[in-house]
Amino acid sequence: MQSGAADARLDFWFELASTYSYPAALRMAATAAAADVNVRWRVFLLGPIFRAQGIDTSPFNLHPAKGQYMWRDVERVCAELDLPFRRPEPFPQPSLLAARVALVGLAQAWGVAFVCAVYRAQFGQGHQIGEEAVIGDLLADIGVEPGAVLEKARSPGVKAALRSETAEAQRMGIFGAPSFATPDGELFWGNDRLEAALAWARRRG
Amino acid sequence: MQSGAADARLDFWFELASTYSYPAALRMAATAAAADVNVRWRVFLLGPIFRAQGIDTSPFNLHPAKGQYMWRDVERVCAELDLPFRRPEPFPQPSLLAARVALVGLAQAWGVAFVCAVYRAQFGQGHQIGEEAVIGDLLADIGVEPGAVLEKARSPGVKAALRSETAEAQRMGIFGAPSFATPDGELFWGNDRLEAALAWARRRG
Repeated sequence: MQSGAADARLDFWFELASTYSYPAALRMAATAAAADVNVRWRVFLLGPIFRAQGIDTSPFNLHPAKGQYMWRDVERVCAELDLPFRRPEPFPQPSLLAARVALVGLAQAWGVAFVCAVYRAQFGQGHQIGEEAVIGDLLADIGVEPGAVLEKARSPGVKAALRSETAEAQRMGIFGAPSFATPDGELFWGNDRLEAALAWARRRG
Repeated sequence: MQSGAADARLDFWFELASTYSYPAALRMAATAAAADVNVRWRVFLLGPIFRAQGIDTSPFNLHPAKGQYMWRDVERVCAELDLPFRRPEPFPQPSLLAARVALVGLAQAWGVAFVCAVYRAQFGQGHQIGEEAVIGDLLADIGVEPGAVLEKARSPGVKAALRSETAEAQRMGIFGAPSFATPDGELFWGNDRLEAALAWARRRG
């Protein structure tokens, strides 16, 4: 089915502790606008997907040469985009609370601003995104009152919704982040495939 | 040290059984010429590097979701480049003999033509590149008399030289193919990072 460029759509699947999701998220607005593609931001957790493979940490921690390469490569990618980069310790950061808050925000108007703030704090400044106080400060910084949001993020409904999004990612064959999915079922993995995913979305989505 | 574009150099590390090395090799001549970078082709074996990590096959075979994604992605990448694609069975193909022959050819004038012929036969037509008869036919096709070359490929000197190249790749932190290395020690991994590697080589190499 051919569709006009104005209808082109792409799902952007990201994990808040994922290194390469940081540059993807921070360049998404401008890159997607230039391609005239509407992007839906979808947060999920990689932890359960890795655990289903019998892996209990990031693959970058399991394979030292790959990990060493990744840290240098992300640093280069960020420099190219004029994004600050600082390696967070520990890595990966616990992203569960931030992901639940992001899910609340993505159903409201401030989700993308919050997600970008989390990435900047974590990979630009080395902040601990697993801490509730850090998340509260990030919410306040973007003009959102933290109290009610943090309470809602811990509600059974939001917890179930995040589990459901993660299950959907797994069902689609997603195994890493960032990933991009078109309405006709094509999957692209990695920050450096964003342009290919946008082009596909325009041609076929 | 600043150097003119005419001096820009890049090492292209490839494994003959590697899926993403196929499009990288086939687009290398035109892409490197457009960037005005001199590329040195360096063949190595991924098998010993994977075995050092306790892995006895391709990581794409170990992780089904990643493997399924890779086959679809390589198909798309090849379609974009107008390259035929056919999944070889079994995967990975035994690449030891082809790698030794490539090493002989890269020290002479026909190495790049042979490497491209191996990739086309394997991933364009599904041929068995582990078979001596197939390698002999590919040599004959590019105008090289197979007998002496196959004998030389099995000589202790060539066997040792391939071990040495593989050890050098491992020492440099190479963990997959294709990889690209600049003279100042920057490493780039993956077909989709070729442009970044060429740009780096021009700026700093």
